[in-house]
Amino acid sequence: MGSLSEDAVDLAQGLIRCKSVTPEEGGALDYLQGKLEAAGFTCHRLPFEAAGTPTVDNLYARIGTGRPHLCFAGHTDVVPPGDDDAWTHPPFAGDIDQGLLYGRGAADMKGGVAAFAAAAFDYLTFARGEPAGSISLLITGDEEGPAVNGTEKVLKWMEAHDEVLDHAIVGEPTNATQLGETIKIGRRGSLNGKVTVKGVQGHVAYPALANNPIRGLIAVLSSLYEEPLDHGNAHFAPSNLEVTTIDVRNPATNVIPAKAEALFNIRFNDDHTPDSLQSWAREKAFMALEGSGLEAIFDYEPANPVFVTEPGTLSTLLSEAISDVTGLTPELSTAGGTSDARFIKDYCPVVEFGLTTETMHQVDERVSLSDLEKLAVIYRRFLDLYFNGGTAS
Amino acid sequence: MGSLSEDAVDLAQGLIRCKSVTPEEGGALDYLQGKLEAAGFTCHRLPFEAAGTPTVDNLYARIGTGRPHLCFAGHTDVVPPGDDDAWTHPPFAGDIDQGLLYGRGAADMKGGVAAFAAAAFDYLTFARGEPAGSISLLITGDEEGPAVNGTEKVLKWMEAHDEVLDHAIVGEPTNATQLGETIKIGRRGSLNGKVTVKGVQGHVAYPALANNPIRGLIAVLSSLYEEPLDHGNAHFAPSNLEVTTIDVRNPATNVIPAKAEALFNIRFNDDHTPDSLQSWAREKAFMALEGSGLEAIFDYEPANPVFVTEPGTLSTLLSEAISDVTGLTPELSTAGGTSDARFIKDYCPVVEFGLTTETMHQVDERVSLSDLEKLAVIYRRFLDLYFNGGTAS
Repeated sequence: MGSLSEDAVDLAQGLIRCKSVTPEEGGALDYLQGKLEAAGFTCHRLPFEAAGTPTVDNLYARIGTGRPHLCFAGHTDVVPPGDDDAWTHPPFAGDIDQGLLYGRGAADMKGGVAAFAAAAFDYLTFARGEPAGSISLLITGDEEGPAVNGTEKVLKWMEAHDEVLDHAIVGEPTNATQLGETIKIGRRGSLNGKVTVKGVQGHVAYPALANNPIRGLIAVLSSLYEEPLDHGNAHFAPSNLEVTTIDVRNPATNVIPAKAEALFNIRFNDDHTPDSLQSWAREKAFMALEGSGLEAIFDYEPANPVFVTEPGTLSTLLSEAISDVTGLTPELSTAGGTSDARFIKDYCPVVEFGLTTETMHQVDERVSLSDLEKLAVIYRRFLDLYFNGGTAS
Repeated sequence: MGSLSEDAVDLAQGLIRCKSVTPEEGGALDYLQGKLEAAGFTCHRLPFEAAGTPTVDNLYARIGTGRPHLCFAGHTDVVPPGDDDAWTHPPFAGDIDQGLLYGRGAADMKGGVAAFAAAAFDYLTFARGEPAGSISLLITGDEEGPAVNGTEKVLKWMEAHDEVLDHAIVGEPTNATQLGETIKIGRRGSLNGKVTVKGVQGHVAYPALANNPIRGLIAVLSSLYEEPLDHGNAHFAPSNLEVTTIDVRNPATNVIPAKAEALFNIRFNDDHTPDSLQSWAREKAFMALEGSGLEAIFDYEPANPVFVTEPGTLSTLLSEAISDVTGLTPELSTAGGTSDARFIKDYCPVVEFGLTTETMHQVDERVSLSDLEKLAVIYRRFLDLYFNGGTAS
């Protein structure tokens, strides 16, 4: 379990040096495609566009024609670096300093892409260019942006071209502090809602002639906060509601306003559906406002659905690979924010595993060379277990 | 109890035709001063200024040198008319139509000033220019504005010039619908507060790493609303708290904000002081946030104090005059919004009585000629009762 024939650090450095802030391709896909083609992959560049969003380029690369077909999914686009001067190393230089590789995307997730590519190249060297199945990379340039012209459309293109996946690993950072502690096997759903209470405007000195909608809104929000939605279950943390803003915008301190509204977000597990949550909120509000003469009106954005890939081959083999390399037993988690796994889960079992999350989206984003190399070895070990029952290294 | 020798309607029309939107004098004080001087009043024009506020002109007029000294207080400034075209009669024309006098200030309170002046002129005619005591008019041009360069400064000027008052009537509109139903003998206090809860910002998907200040703010506001502050007492309605705005201004639906704040107003009776209310709110918030790791910080504007002129000579005689003219027994009330009585109460007993409030500050502000004449007769009857035990008419 030493180092690989291909250097994940070199590849990560090469990717970081491409200025691929969403929606710019910045040369990152070209760079990766060159490496993949040299290793025998067939590459498809898949630019997509939609009204109101920037056109985004994507890359789908595959080697092999047989089953099983393992797909590694990720992105080469990055969030903006902010103020370049705030960085101790320029965000697109790929500087290495004291065992750390600096740069925007080092963790999220050019490092992950580089580690997987290095693992695949090493495996293919061992397999003389003929994997015992197929390996593909689905690399989007629209993960940090609106995610409209990225993974979702590539998957549709693949379906239309009979590109059938058996399993997928998303290489997003998943570990809070230590490489190997967390595999993500799903995600809570996310529902954004707005609640509006309409009242009767009036002068604060004559409250009997008015009906303060803020009083009603407070009652509604209190009732939504009153009890936990659930206590979590086998794969999920408890569902959680957070009010994210209340904005009444009443400039007059002697006036009871006509209307008050609040936005809230619910992260929900598979004990709920968007519909069941909406009924729950409506009922809570109705009870909270009973007798007040006020009414709450709810509006919702389309929800991100909850999903879980029940523990199986994929998580078992990936856990084994992680244990072999790090000695840790990873937790199978469904915590955290959204990723493109939410699209892939409709096509095949998908899990997520990558670097640590500590510096992602921050100034001086960085990854230790040791983690980067270790992640490549984990992916390599996984390919071995997946395709050859652990004998191909 | 017929009509008077002086015509309140003529005087009101004359005042309405002066475009005296705060802080403009607009000729209104000049017009009134001319009438008062003709009747034998000694007049003082008292313009005041202060940094950050417009200079405002005021009028203090007195006839007689003896005691008792009755002061009638009011204002000739008016709020803006808004869109002139929305009025069925131009706001500064003083048109009479079907027994109604139209115009900005007709009710609030050029009508009241005209009625009092008419009453005083009639009384002086009867008294051959020598009242059994003194009558004065304290007319400001800064009641609808910041009220910084008006009544308060005139009262200080009067104190410095040994102008001592025995009783005062403020002629603001006091009757909700029917002339004679309400005398105001005081006012609840008013306290404007801001409550800020600081939390820990974070991602909604990781609530354990954040501490939502909105949750805390809702708990604090709920606890302030929980129980009534009191149930009212002999002279006062219950104290009342209204939250007037909550503004978090968090644009990101996936972010728990760092801070949340709300403004509130408390109208309080003499069961409370601003200090006792601040302690009450602090304690409520402390209990509401116990164990949350959050803290509420309160800021307050200087309070308008609560005051009451205990029923006595002034309210007794004014009630009698109202009953004599209208047949109604007026309620002695402390309801409603603030007026310049809050300044006068530091110098002498003060009550408020004037026209009806229905159209004040509205488009097509108007007063019925019958109410205007009746109000003048009430004031005239009061002067008779006050100075001559009811024999001077």
